[in-house]
Amino acid sequence: MQHGRAHTSLPNREEQTGRSCCATMAPTGAKKGILERLDAGQVVIGDGGFVFALEKRGYVKAGPWTPEAASEHPEAVRQLHREFLRAGSNVMQTFTFYASDDKLENRGHTQRFTGQQINEAACDLAREVANEGDALVAGGVSQTPAYLSCKSEDEVKATFKKQLDVFVCKNVDFLIAEYFEHVEEAEWAVQVLKTTGKPVAATMCIGPEGDLNGVSPGDCAVRLVKAGAQIVGVNCHFDPVTCVKTVKLMKEGVEKAGLKAHYMSQPLAYHTPDCNRQGFIDLPEFPFSLEPRIVTRWDVQKYAREAYNVGIRYIGGCCGFEPYHIRAVAEELAPERGFLPAGSEKHGSWGSGLDMHTKPWVRARARRDYWEKLKPASGRPFCPSMSTPDGWGVTKGHADLMQQKEATSEEQLKVLFDKASKGN
Amino acid sequence: MQHGRAHTSLPNREEQTGRSCCATMAPTGAKKGILERLDAGQVVIGDGGFVFALEKRGYVKAGPWTPEAASEHPEAVRQLHREFLRAGSNVMQTFTFYASDDKLENRGHTQRFTGQQINEAACDLAREVANEGDALVAGGVSQTPAYLSCKSEDEVKATFKKQLDVFVCKNVDFLIAEYFEHVEEAEWAVQVLKTTGKPVAATMCIGPEGDLNGVSPGDCAVRLVKAGAQIVGVNCHFDPVTCVKTVKLMKEGVEKAGLKAHYMSQPLAYHTPDCNRQGFIDLPEFPFSLEPRIVTRWDVQKYAREAYNVGIRYIGGCCGFEPYHIRAVAEELAPERGFLPAGSEKHGSWGSGLDMHTKPWVRARARRDYWEKLKPASGRPFCPSMSTPDGWGVTKGHADLMQQKEATSEEQLKVLFDKASKGN
Amino acid sequence: MQHGRAHTSLPNREEQTGRSCCATMAPTGAKKGILERLDAGQVVIGDGGFVFALEKRGYVKAGPWTPEAASEHPEAVRQLHREFLRAGSNVMQTFTFYASDDKLENRGHTQRFTGQQINEAACDLAREVANEGDALVAGGVSQTPAYLSCKSEDEVKATFKKQLDVFVCKNVDFLIAEYFEHVEEAEWAVQVLKTTGKPVAATMCIGPEGDLNGVSPGDCAVRLVKAGAQIVGVNCHFDPVTCVKTVKLMKEGVEKAGLKAHYMSQPLAYHTPDCNRQGFIDLPEFPFSLEPRIVTRWDVQKYAREAYNVGIRYIGGCCGFEPYHIRAVAEELAPERGFLPAGSEKHGSWGSGLDMHTKPWVRARARRDYWEKLKPASGRPFCPSMSTPDGWGVTKGHADLMQQKEATSEEQLKVLFDKASKGN
Amino acid sequence: MQHGRAHTSLPNREEQTGRSCCATMAPTGAKKGILERLDAGQVVIGDGGFVFALEKRGYVKAGPWTPEAASEHPEAVRQLHREFLRAGSNVMQTFTFYASDDKLENRGHTQRFTGQQINEAACDLAREVANEGDALVAGGVSQTPAYLSCKSEDEVKATFKKQLDVFVCKNVDFLIAEYFEHVEEAEWAVQVLKTTGKPVAATMCIGPEGDLNGVSPGDCAVRLVKAGAQIVGVNCHFDPVTCVKTVKLMKEGVEKAGLKAHYMSQPLAYHTPDCNRQGFIDLPEFPFSLEPRIVTRWDVQKYAREAYNVGIRYIGGCCGFEPYHIRAVAEELAPERGFLPAGSEKHGSWGSGLDMHTKPWVRARARRDYWEKLKPASGRPFCPSMSTPDGWGVTKGHADLMQQKEATSEEQLKVLFDKASKGN
Repeated sequence: MQHGRAHTSLPNREEQTGRSCCATMAPTGAKKGILERLDAGQVVIGDGGFVFALEKRGYVKAGPWTPEAASEHPEAVRQLHREFLRAGSNVMQTFTFYASDDKLENRGHTQRFTGQQINEAACDLAREVANEGDALVAGGVSQTPAYLSCKSEDEVKATFKKQLDVFVCKNVDFLIAEYFEHVEEAEWAVQVLKTTGKPVAATMCIGPEGDLNGVSPGDCAVRLVKAGAQIVGVNCHFDPVTCVKTVKLMKEGVEKAGLKAHYMSQPLAYHTPDCNRQGFIDLPEFPFSLEPRIVTRWDVQKYAREAYNVGIRYIGGCCGFEPYHIRAVAEELAPERGFLPAGSEKHGSWGSGLDMHTKPWVRARARRDYWEKLKPASGRPFCPSMSTPDGWGVTKGHADLMQQKEATSEEQLKVLFDKASKGN
Repeated sequence: MQHGRAHTSLPNREEQTGRSCCATMAPTGAKKGILERLDAGQVVIGDGGFVFALEKRGYVKAGPWTPEAASEHPEAVRQLHREFLRAGSNVMQTFTFYASDDKLENRGHTQRFTGQQINEAACDLAREVANEGDALVAGGVSQTPAYLSCKSEDEVKATFKKQLDVFVCKNVDFLIAEYFEHVEEAEWAVQVLKTTGKPVAATMCIGPEGDLNGVSPGDCAVRLVKAGAQIVGVNCHFDPVTCVKTVKLMKEGVEKAGLKAHYMSQPLAYHTPDCNRQGFIDLPEFPFSLEPRIVTRWDVQKYAREAYNVGIRYIGGCCGFEPYHIRAVAEELAPERGFLPAGSEKHGSWGSGLDMHTKPWVRARARRDYWEKLKPASGRPFCPSMSTPDGWGVTKGHADLMQQKEATSEEQLKVLFDKASKGN
Repeated sequence: MQHGRAHTSLPNREEQTGRSCCATMAPTGAKKGILERLDAGQVVIGDGGFVFALEKRGYVKAGPWTPEAASEHPEAVRQLHREFLRAGSNVMQTFTFYASDDKLENRGHTQRFTGQQINEAACDLAREVANEGDALVAGGVSQTPAYLSCKSEDEVKATFKKQLDVFVCKNVDFLIAEYFEHVEEAEWAVQVLKTTGKPVAATMCIGPEGDLNGVSPGDCAVRLVKAGAQIVGVNCHFDPVTCVKTVKLMKEGVEKAGLKAHYMSQPLAYHTPDCNRQGFIDLPEFPFSLEPRIVTRWDVQKYAREAYNVGIRYIGGCCGFEPYHIRAVAEELAPERGFLPAGSEKHGSWGSGLDMHTKPWVRARARRDYWEKLKPASGRPFCPSMSTPDGWGVTKGHADLMQQKEATSEEQLKVLFDKASKGN
Repeated sequence: MQHGRAHTSLPNREEQTGRSCCATMAPTGAKKGILERLDAGQVVIGDGGFVFALEKRGYVKAGPWTPEAASEHPEAVRQLHREFLRAGSNVMQTFTFYASDDKLENRGHTQRFTGQQINEAACDLAREVANEGDALVAGGVSQTPAYLSCKSEDEVKATFKKQLDVFVCKNVDFLIAEYFEHVEEAEWAVQVLKTTGKPVAATMCIGPEGDLNGVSPGDCAVRLVKAGAQIVGVNCHFDPVTCVKTVKLMKEGVEKAGLKAHYMSQPLAYHTPDCNRQGFIDLPEFPFSLEPRIVTRWDVQKYAREAYNVGIRYIGGCCGFEPYHIRAVAEELAPERGFLPAGSEKHGSWGSGLDMHTKPWVRARARRDYWEKLKPASGRPFCPSMSTPDGWGVTKGHADLMQQKEATSEEQLKVLFDKASKGN
């Protein structure tokens, strides 16, 4: 099998960019669109989690999680896009999570760049790298503080609209409404995105128990399809096993309703068998001690296969997914796709590269059977294998969840710490 | 405390480089050398593990582990250097591990670039980024296939000499002889490196049980100091706890012998309580399922403090250390150093950035006490917490360890798999 | 609170017995019957698991699991009854599990005693000890090989009838139909037991997923009540948490159907979070490596409280429940019952006896808070916390499950081992 | 192989006993003594732990741990002796642990029986059951509160002497000085026991690190042999693996000193890889949450083999060892001994009894290979596999360890709880 057949233009150069909105960086013409690909039965490989990967690289602050790096350190963002492209991603999502002005302010960002500048920079970076290979650019919106604070439908929709303007101006290839805990808000997002005429994917951050109001995955999916989404699924909050299970329920719901859709999953790269409905944010390890839960490349190959088997064709990752995880998706599905990603020139399938290791007992690990069966030890005998999720039983509309602009005050924190101590 | 006081020149630009050996990229003049710093009692922060980090990013092949990326994908190598610099590293190690011609061939590398080209490119990249901040460039040599195959002292020394020529030509700031399992070979390396007149650090990949011939850490250290190393310590093969313990034994040996040295540790970022003398390579999880063992940033802060407390002043990391791990060293030792690294502008000390999280129970995690006490779950209830190391009881000189140019043949692999199956 | 108020007659003597059926060992007159107690809202404490406890003591063979010890080693059976009585049990179940002639033969028992002799001896032992305190005697029947082998309703009922004759002759206080995996067979058993006019309890060995044909716990309970059982619930196969959950579903079913019943649970003393529908027999550790799963006395106190809180009033145990586990039930519910069991004269509530320990840090464990919060370590770092259940997807009527008289032959075993090896 | 060849007299009767000291219960004449057996190279199988087993059965109070059950509930003590005899024990240790008057008072025992009565009753019970098979009676003394409280050598020796009087009067077959943390006190005990002319065994509750003053196992053993012990070894405090390792060190010490001895081990039936020098008492789970650490019968077979292989011939158990654990010793060493214990008539070697199980996949477990390789799951995903031992760094002579007659007062406990909370 040939390496990177589809990526022959992937350059070894380091180009400079400097453009203003709506002027440059047109998509290279000949690429097939997202729906053409899915309609043709092709596998579309998504990318991984920018926020978490760039936090580890030093460019995103955990807590605010805002994407000012697109303007502050474009070389870092561009490099990560390239690594995902090289790993096999067919989609470059613009690094615009939480990039609205109010959020940037709310999250304590010192305003060296406006929200619009950041959004535009992110779009340009995604397009630049997409043009280096067989990838499309997707612009994304996600759940809003406005909704949690019980603002009106109009107000919430206005927030989506504002973010959308940059995507339209920058002419992204399609749109994703992602990371919604309430199906109602996701519907509103889809309705706004649909006004652009571009293809719309919608993913919720829910598990098999459904959204935070208890709407089942099947019902969520049906409502999103009816709202106009051509692609539905889940992202974030749960591990690959759980996400595939949830999308399967969505698919069954859609089919039972006599509707049609494409399916998508972008799970965490963390094992989360102990999550409750709210997902990994409630795990005590979130976000700074998730390391022991990181999935291996073999876990990802299993995920890719299972996702494919239940009929999911848009297969990517979310928080925790690093380039080598995406490469594992591409390697697992290489037989179906007909080629390996460029990054596989540096990876022996199923550990085969180890046949050149110095020590013979390490060479004996150069086989699929070995890695598939291995139950990797944690090296942490003083730690358990599961945690009890936090969560104080509050949901949308609760005073504790009302968004505030200021950082939590000392006194507020004191109250929280006391509450938390008693809970344990 | 001010962010990045020492790094005011760190640029937001993306420069091009193209130079030939011994001509360009002079060190910026005013920096203090490695020994000046250590003699003054300063903390010197090393960098993390390039080979493992770049394997995950798609630029290094596990098994051969060769560094051709310095020539093939300089933007990826430069970016990783920058991330470590931003995280607080004072040393840019040239990405030249295993970069000798015979090794490059031996490991199946298709020769688009010669060993010399790769070594030179690696030196230039290190110097380029070192010049962006307060960092020195170190050139490194490590254990040779020649020694394992019982070649003579002259032959082994010739190998080191060849690698050294590029470092001298490129005028690196100091030299590191690292990753030695036999103290004899490490002594030979130090003797060769000393001929340059540059400061020499020497680290072995051993634990408290000593080298593969059973020479104790204390005795190893004494021999290395006598051979001329000004800095001695350990790198790779064991977790931070074990490495600090081992360097402590080295220090006790050196002091008991009435000698003087500086001390250095560059451990794995993996928990390895179950290792035997040969280190993590013998763990069944090596190298593709080590994820559950990855240390958290809090584990690293504890490591940095313990290392400092036993008198280690050159504190860095090896395989598995990502930029955020190095930042944790810099944050833990910020009181001693008087400043935070540039990367801390995107990191709240001890999780303080979480005080802006949406959910109150996550805000309650914005405190040191919480993260220090947490025993993070693995999310893997079907996996154990320790493994039994492999290892077939063979050492230097054994036929099984003789290096061969060709990849292991099908029949050879079959024999290994059978051996391995019986062993389990 | 007074110790053992209800047990003042518990003697320190060692009496001899030698009786023939239907002649001696009348119940002491004044005791309240099982339904009187439950109707009055009293807690009835069951006993623990004879088969497993006596296997460890050397009197029962794992595999056949037959109760010939009642005749062979009456002192051992009597002693265990006494320990449970002392621990607080209000019910002495006759040790007659699998005591039919065909089963005794089928299971390779060398016939030194007939089934009738064993059954009679077991009844006498239960009565003898019951008379020493405030306990009733219960005779039990359980699922039959006949049913699994698809025999007719008449044949299956005849099996129950035969066992019943001894219980009637020995005038047990009430009857238990227990350990049924199929509700149909349990109904048949209840119908037979009802013919005696004695109170009938019926427990199935099912979890929340229902019986092996998928009949829900609620539906099972309704059918058992309609068949004539006054007490319904579950026993064996699952851990305390799961059993309480299952009985809760039964209770909801019964109440929804407008019926009335008393509720009963007799769970395993093993943690089984990893069981599938078939229960702990399919766990790889069954029956010889279940040790790490054994519940602590504190786990049992939690169980007793939860069982009480959901409305279960007949609270006992099954396999793995030792006398100290039953004592924990009695101690937890001492406030409701008004007295402690005799056995508590040798047990400080919540570890309070430790206040006399030699070492001060052990004295510091003499408190409820300590034991309730402790997460006990397994001391087994090379073992996982969960297993994948076996189970080859065969159910009632499958050829593999047809009972045979002979022990499995060498060839049959060879086939099984091969099947098993492939499965792993 | 014949079952219980050596136990043909083991009766199925329940006899009454009632004797006064020094009058009855003479040993049956023809048995070989302990030294004759060991000198002839025979394996001698010890018994298991009475205190822990009887605590679970309801006859011993944890904390005081006193043996008044010998008088209060002789049937319970006799039954446990019988179970160990049936399991293969060649030694019945008198149930006299902590049976001195001061200890009985100190530990809050309400004096229904004097220390002498209890000691005599215990001797009679041991002798009675020993006479039912091929077992000897051993009387034991263990470490004293007097020593910990820094009393003089004379005072400590007087304590041992007092206990000894009963053993002499009752004419036990040999003596054991066991459970010593300080070799000095053990020497004193041996010196006192030697005055009787009976064979003396001496075991310390230490691990490879040696006694609480740091005297190595080898040196401890040498001192005990020089003091007159013919048999030396370890008991309690550590798991089988650790105990075998420690006795091996003792043997090496004795042989290096040119001395001769027999070797003995009676370990815990709990896995304790996380213990420090003080043993399992410092584990947070001691004594009420040790369940997950209980060894399986297969662990014990491995232990028996390893003990045999290093030259230990007196092989028994201590706390946690139940009859089935002792049977596992006897089954593992049946080839060497030439016969199986009586109890094996109810146990298929290596699980072979499962070949008659109903379900085929359980029948597939009827083989040694299966049980030897199984890594049993804990069923406790929220628990770790290791704990950090407590221990406040105090040793003999420290005020905190001075013995007091009264139970710890409320105020004293409050201080302890606070200390403990801070420690965590």
